[in-house]
Amino acid sequence: MIERYQDEAIAEIWSDSHKLNLWQQTELAVVRARANLGRVPDEVNKEFARILATNPIDLGWWLQRDQEIRHDLNAFLEERSRFLPPRLQVHLHEKMTSYDTEEPAFAKMLRESSVLVKSHYNELEVILQDMASRYRYTIMNGRTHGQEAELQTFGKRCLTWLRDIRASADNLQRSEDGLRYSKLSGAIGNYGSMDPVIEKEALGILGFEPYYGATQIIPRELYAPIAQALCQLVLTLDKIATAIRLGARSGRPIYQEPFGKKQKGSSAMPNKKNTISTEQVEGMARMARAYLMMIMENIKTWEERAIEQSCVERVAWPDLFCVVVHSLRTMGRVLKGLVVYPDNMLLEIIECRGCYASGEAKEVIKELGLPLSLTAEEAYRIVQLAAFNAFEPDKEAKSVRTSIPSHLTEADELLSGFRLVPRPTPVSIQEIIAEARLKTSTQLEATKGDVQRWNRILEQIFQEQGNRDRWNRIFLPSFLLRNEAKLYCEILD
Amino acid sequence: MIERYQDEAIAEIWSDSHKLNLWQQTELAVVRARANLGRVPDEVNKEFARILATNPIDLGWWLQRDQEIRHDLNAFLEERSRFLPPRLQVHLHEKMTSYDTEEPAFAKMLRESSVLVKSHYNELEVILQDMASRYRYTIMNGRTHGQEAELQTFGKRCLTWLRDIRASADNLQRSEDGLRYSKLSGAIGNYGSMDPVIEKEALGILGFEPYYGATQIIPRELYAPIAQALCQLVLTLDKIATAIRLGARSGRPIYQEPFGKKQKGSSAMPNKKNTISTEQVEGMARMARAYLMMIMENIKTWEERAIEQSCVERVAWPDLFCVVVHSLRTMGRVLKGLVVYPDNMLLEIIECRGCYASGEAKEVIKELGLPLSLTAEEAYRIVQLAAFNAFEPDKEAKSVRTSIPSHLTEADELLSGFRLVPRPTPVSIQEIIAEARLKTSTQLEATKGDVQRWNRILEQIFQEQGNRDRWNRIFLPSFLLRNEAKLYCEILD
Amino acid sequence: MIERYQDEAIAEIWSDSHKLNLWQQTELAVVRARANLGRVPDEVNKEFARILATNPIDLGWWLQRDQEIRHDLNAFLEERSRFLPPRLQVHLHEKMTSYDTEEPAFAKMLRESSVLVKSHYNELEVILQDMASRYRYTIMNGRTHGQEAELQTFGKRCLTWLRDIRASADNLQRSEDGLRYSKLSGAIGNYGSMDPVIEKEALGILGFEPYYGATQIIPRELYAPIAQALCQLVLTLDKIATAIRLGARSGRPIYQEPFGKKQKGSSAMPNKKNTISTEQVEGMARMARAYLMMIMENIKTWEERAIEQSCVERVAWPDLFCVVVHSLRTMGRVLKGLVVYPDNMLLEIIECRGCYASGEAKEVIKELGLPLSLTAEEAYRIVQLAAFNAFEPDKEAKSVRTSIPSHLTEADELLSGFRLVPRPTPVSIQEIIAEARLKTSTQLEATKGDVQRWNRILEQIFQEQGNRDRWNRIFLPSFLLRNEAKLYCEILD
Amino acid sequence: MIERYQDEAIAEIWSDSHKLNLWQQTELAVVRARANLGRVPDEVNKEFARILATNPIDLGWWLQRDQEIRHDLNAFLEERSRFLPPRLQVHLHEKMTSYDTEEPAFAKMLRESSVLVKSHYNELEVILQDMASRYRYTIMNGRTHGQEAELQTFGKRCLTWLRDIRASADNLQRSEDGLRYSKLSGAIGNYGSMDPVIEKEALGILGFEPYYGATQIIPRELYAPIAQALCQLVLTLDKIATAIRLGARSGRPIYQEPFGKKQKGSSAMPNKKNTISTEQVEGMARMARAYLMMIMENIKTWEERAIEQSCVERVAWPDLFCVVVHSLRTMGRVLKGLVVYPDNMLLEIIECRGCYASGEAKEVIKELGLPLSLTAEEAYRIVQLAAFNAFEPDKEAKSVRTSIPSHLTEADELLSGFRLVPRPTPVSIQEIIAEARLKTSTQLEATKGDVQRWNRILEQIFQEQGNRDRWNRIFLPSFLLRNEAKLYCEILD
Repeated sequence: MIERYQDEAIAEIWSDSHKLNLWQQTELAVVRARANLGRVPDEVNKEFARILATNPIDLGWWLQRDQEIRHDLNAFLEERSRFLPPRLQVHLHEKMTSYDTEEPAFAKMLRESSVLVKSHYNELEVILQDMASRYRYTIMNGRTHGQEAELQTFGKRCLTWLRDIRASADNLQRSEDGLRYSKLSGAIGNYGSMDPVIEKEALGILGFEPYYGATQIIPRELYAPIAQALCQLVLTLDKIATAIRLGARSGRPIYQEPFGKKQKGSSAMPNKKNTISTEQVEGMARMARAYLMMIMENIKTWEERAIEQSCVERVAWPDLFCVVVHSLRTMGRVLKGLVVYPDNMLLEIIECRGCYASGEAKEVIKELGLPLSLTAEEAYRIVQLAAFNAFEPDKEAKSVRTSIPSHLTEADELLSGFRLVPRPTPVSIQEIIAEARLKTSTQLEATKGDVQRWNRILEQIFQEQGNRDRWNRIFLPSFLLRNEAKLYCEILD
Repeated sequence: MIERYQDEAIAEIWSDSHKLNLWQQTELAVVRARANLGRVPDEVNKEFARILATNPIDLGWWLQRDQEIRHDLNAFLEERSRFLPPRLQVHLHEKMTSYDTEEPAFAKMLRESSVLVKSHYNELEVILQDMASRYRYTIMNGRTHGQEAELQTFGKRCLTWLRDIRASADNLQRSEDGLRYSKLSGAIGNYGSMDPVIEKEALGILGFEPYYGATQIIPRELYAPIAQALCQLVLTLDKIATAIRLGARSGRPIYQEPFGKKQKGSSAMPNKKNTISTEQVEGMARMARAYLMMIMENIKTWEERAIEQSCVERVAWPDLFCVVVHSLRTMGRVLKGLVVYPDNMLLEIIECRGCYASGEAKEVIKELGLPLSLTAEEAYRIVQLAAFNAFEPDKEAKSVRTSIPSHLTEADELLSGFRLVPRPTPVSIQEIIAEARLKTSTQLEATKGDVQRWNRILEQIFQEQGNRDRWNRIFLPSFLLRNEAKLYCEILD
Repeated sequence: MIERYQDEAIAEIWSDSHKLNLWQQTELAVVRARANLGRVPDEVNKEFARILATNPIDLGWWLQRDQEIRHDLNAFLEERSRFLPPRLQVHLHEKMTSYDTEEPAFAKMLRESSVLVKSHYNELEVILQDMASRYRYTIMNGRTHGQEAELQTFGKRCLTWLRDIRASADNLQRSEDGLRYSKLSGAIGNYGSMDPVIEKEALGILGFEPYYGATQIIPRELYAPIAQALCQLVLTLDKIATAIRLGARSGRPIYQEPFGKKQKGSSAMPNKKNTISTEQVEGMARMARAYLMMIMENIKTWEERAIEQSCVERVAWPDLFCVVVHSLRTMGRVLKGLVVYPDNMLLEIIECRGCYASGEAKEVIKELGLPLSLTAEEAYRIVQLAAFNAFEPDKEAKSVRTSIPSHLTEADELLSGFRLVPRPTPVSIQEIIAEARLKTSTQLEATKGDVQRWNRILEQIFQEQGNRDRWNRIFLPSFLLRNEAKLYCEILD
Repeated sequence: MIERYQDEAIAEIWSDSHKLNLWQQTELAVVRARANLGRVPDEVNKEFARILATNPIDLGWWLQRDQEIRHDLNAFLEERSRFLPPRLQVHLHEKMTSYDTEEPAFAKMLRESSVLVKSHYNELEVILQDMASRYRYTIMNGRTHGQEAELQTFGKRCLTWLRDIRASADNLQRSEDGLRYSKLSGAIGNYGSMDPVIEKEALGILGFEPYYGATQIIPRELYAPIAQALCQLVLTLDKIATAIRLGARSGRPIYQEPFGKKQKGSSAMPNKKNTISTEQVEGMARMARAYLMMIMENIKTWEERAIEQSCVERVAWPDLFCVVVHSLRTMGRVLKGLVVYPDNMLLEIIECRGCYASGEAKEVIKELGLPLSLTAEEAYRIVQLAAFNAFEPDKEAKSVRTSIPSHLTEADELLSGFRLVPRPTPVSIQEIIAEARLKTSTQLEATKGDVQRWNRILEQIFQEQGNRDRWNRIFLPSFLLRNEAKLYCEILD
């Protein structure tokens, strides 16, 4: 991964120097296992370990030798042999094949990277928990299809984000089942030379169980689900990032990414506060999906193995981990510094003209209308019509909609003229319905007759004070959001 | 493709019955080619053609036979042989291999489908041309990063959409270069039995040139670019669809998908006018990308061919074409019926507080400030500060931002209270700067000293009437959009 | 999915008629839950259930209505309402949103499809267990990189296949954790109208737990891992299919797909027995990967949901399930009918000239050579040189390699001449080394001096009868495969 | 890209230092364009250019400033401004937006990388031309479905490889149409401040035409086809690599990757010559496909642009180019050093028992049998039966196939016993048919009666010397390959 998006800790895990050290750990574990089981004298084990520990691996030497013999593991063995006397050389890589040495190392690199991911994930989880608590009573429009939907709190939205990343983190946890295993079962996995007892002991030292059924390699079926889980985590972050971008749209943002005091938004337009961090997370998601595909394809190989997967794994895993960590960090930073505008949330609610309660309104009308022969279907259409009525344009707006300018100077005039027009106070479906002020709409089928009948029924309904009280209550946040407590109780506690 | 998203004409092209007819066309062309070149008597050709033409292919018979012998082309030959006397049977599929018969048929199916795509594309192009003309002078905010950017007309946005789909259509045109070719060169492509002269004649009859260098099949390198081009077209439509979804966000949509008089937006919330069509186009784009991947992978095969590609091609090509046609139709319907709100476009411009001209403003201040020792960097920071000043919240908003409710009933009160607060008239950077009213901002680094100095310089600048005039002019649409004429001239004419 | 690759049971699960029945089940469960909890009289529940049960859903009516109102769930509600008296209509979909009805239905479709997948998987597992047992002692070359590797039994290869599909099946099992949950929490998931207690009761009736933290929909994070697991299963099958294709390569196949008595391999070449079934599985894998990508992308949506995912889910899930079931069936048929040629396996072993034991040979030489100052590195190079010696071409072959024909008639002669040349008996590294017959090779660095020294040391080693016996023993299958018993014990019992 | 697979020239093109130099080129071109058009004095242009040229860009300064203001282009402008006097500062980036500077630079990086790709491609083309010439008369079995198919020369296989990469190279050429264009049209592409005349002049200086219809950026529709073409090139190389792997399978390789004198194939098995380079190309193809997907997704953005594409482009393009160049180089090295075994090719032909001519055989029998009332279908079945007869196992093989060992020691015996069995000389369909020696086969439907009848007819046919001569001729390479000359003529000349 290029430096800009690289995580140093991830890069270190996947570095050549760390990999070679892990290879050495495998070699040491096998000799130690043999000693534990009495196959070699313990002195041999100790001296072997001492010599390798005191002679650090020479990366430059290794790299050059690799280029000559075109086999990185053999080059490593040659590098290590340089320090061992012949009688110890025979124990190095004894009865092993390259991937016996490499597979436990590879699984460890996955484990270590995953630990890092989880620590970044945990930070993000805390941030979201804090947000959910802080905005427990900060009301806003829910949005489906980008349209105002029912009322909710911003805290509840944070809860759903929290739950989404938890679902993806749980998935990651489950996906790591395959990391329990590794193998030392030789060139084709049937212990041609290696004794299964030694495999078990040595893998135990390294923290693994034997995988019975390996070929020369661990089947990549064990690792592919991890890539899916990592990718999914980024996709979840991208979903959250998108919600932030959508809320940050000017002119009336409900929240915005933090913007540094020295930050510049654009080289051309100095006013810009662009959502560059959350946009970048979408880019990260594009990459994450692609790295998943690379890794999925690694399942396929020929018979007891070919080495198609190797170059892909050298690139895709560290790059995928970098993308995950970078995305977690970015979203941590964005969420932690998120600038929230509850005033604009209120304005959005007000301008949606009571529609935030349209579902409950329909249920109430349905129930109250039933004795008056109003069908469920009609209750639906009444609320629909009221909503459409509420959003009818005023005279000036209507005129702007119909007379299209035919010259740029007309656009000049339109703009300066419209600026002076006082904006009408929005009318709500709460009043339209309670006051039986439905009108026909060119956008809907309801006839004049329908509307008259409906208004009559509504008048009847709202003559009763009890109905009026009930009606007004359903537009109150405290009524509509009464059940969010359940979510807090289930998710946050 | 499931019926819901299927195009009947595409389905017909990829039907078994059409395919078998195309196979027959290949067989007929080869016999006719032999006759043309004097290799068989013309009577043979005529009778051969007459018999096959008068005996329609029995799909049921063919299907059953295919299941027995597990070879669809051989089953077809057996079906056809039933009607031919032995002396004509020898000319059926003479010296040919299955894919000699199939490849020209397959290329024709691609050609025919592509013609359909283009006709739908052409309709969409006309719609966008009309829109660009109609909204030639309808002004709106451009948006980058979801934020208000410079001023533009909606017509210009339509022009960019038009140009985008044209780019993708041109790409489709170029990608079809490979459809010029086909092959009749036998089981491994080296004319073991077939004479190259007959191939050339027969392919000419079918409308193709020979592809020298085929194996048993045409290399899928010739078709993969078409899949990319088709996919790209859908991605372009998805980009346009997304722009529409973004503009349709309530509460103040600048345009909306058409909504039928009987349409229902939601089973719960009767007020909803959801952007379901444009959202579906995003789903289509997800599919299109995946079909492209399927087809890309078909390039790979073993030696002179294996048949991995066959099942994929039976599924991916017709499904991809259906996705393309469905997306073109959907976007045609959406754009043709798009409900446009120029009044809301004006409101957006007004509420962006002059920032639509911030780029030009910076250039003017840079130029006018130069003699007064104002650096280019300072000009930038002045306009940035003015924009930040313009968006400072009023007192009520500030109070809502800082005092977070701690109970749902507080939210009730906040909502009902905020509804009554009169909304302040937005102040513009046009005035802030011209009147030298810059203030420090907690969001930016500029010190009190900086601000005082800048205001002094601004006062000096705007003492001159000429500068004031020039300044005011840059906020006029007719000034800012003077160069859009160039785009119209280049793209529409 | 096109009929050719469709599974009828899968198609039935994803049919409109089944889906609508599942929707009805949700509606019934909610009313029943209300009755259970005393919110509506039990008579209401019973009559409601009776009427809906006795009036089957009219698919045609529904489809037409859907096209008018462009909302499939509302169309379903209208269809059902036709049979309900107004006082029962109010209970239909009461306080619910469309996806409250749809989500449990969708999760059930996933569950039912998964049950089908598992039953096909189980059949395959039994077939592979049988194969592993049958071929417990049938020896063959292992192959890595397509090259002969150590010796193994075909039974052991079957064991690794078995273990691979088990790993993928276990992954599928784990991935289904998300199918425990569903939701009835209303338009944005915060129980605006619905009571959480009723959700819990109703979901319990349907076999689910509530998912706290849903928006309008269950987050697709819960389903994406299932798609990964299904895809992975196909990729595993493709890996096995590839191993079969590789073993089936003529001229000396070690096994072949079953070939029907009436089957035809090619329209041009009657001798062909093509590996069309296993090749098709590669095509299926290409599709499976693409469907996974479609489904992964469905995680993303806007805020409390948009409907980008819907069209994709209608297509990708049933198509993916069809691909999985078709691949499982195909591989079941291929493996069950696999024609195995143990004689050709033996020939392959013989022709690999003892190299099947090269790893063990190197270990033995290393150990025996240590007292004679032979390094581990030299032991490696001795066995490498012996192997290269064993494969040196004979005189005729060498001549063919160096004199390239310059005309086709020369090729005629070469072919007829070479046919008559008696093929030499292959010489084995077993003899070359034990008889100290190493020679220099142009392909390796070893000098004349090296080779002389090594031959001298080998002579010394193999003077001892004990060493000769030990040496010969390592070329015996019974020695090399002694540890395969461990695998059988761990995997099969 | 990690160093192992990185191309230094590609890395240089995509380095920060090169990118910043290209940015400077844009800035210089715009000032020069203004001078050319008389908008600024030529002295200004010259001094501006001189100062920037003589003060190299300080990468460290830029990097640090980028991190502060989070805007790389603004940081670049600030870095450059340091060296300019205020009166020249105003000309830097005058009336431009960041992507005005960046887009021409980006398109140049694509152009330069593409030139590199082509030079590597050209080397590969020459290698394949040489191979096609050298092996013009080296005969081998064609293979379809991994099975022996008709006869061909290895030269002809090289021709098809050559043609495949040419098809992909032509596609690359066509895909670059979009690189003709760039843009300087400002923040939203409508020349808010910039004059279109200056854009045209400046782009001309940089080697581009204006793209009318850009937004803030060039639509990524112009670049996506290039990614497809690059990816396709790698997929073609992977197809060729796979053919080489398949031919290199031991025990009887027809060709092999070059193997270095010091190379080691395996740490466990010293005999191994693994096909690691060609396998790596498959890994490269996995990566290439994924990078294509990343780049395809970049088409989508919001309205006049958001910046999702930027991080992807920083990673995917250089990584894709590295993958392409690495694959081209690898395949160049492999093909140039390919070790070809014409003797093994001959052995394969001989062992396929005349089936290499089965297609032509069927045509001849069909023709000669017609007067004897043999149908075309029967001619097919005769040749099929003869081929199945030819491959019937001998007694020893049959016994090995039916008696499965039940203990490892039995496997020991079987192996040592089978080694001594003399291998029968293969019998050819050439004789079976000409000598009318067809027998029934358990694998096919033909009855005893059928076979008797067919043998009788064959006897009749082959009584005539003319028919016998004609028959024998069709098994000659010089006959079967007579038309390959056409391919050489069309492709190579």
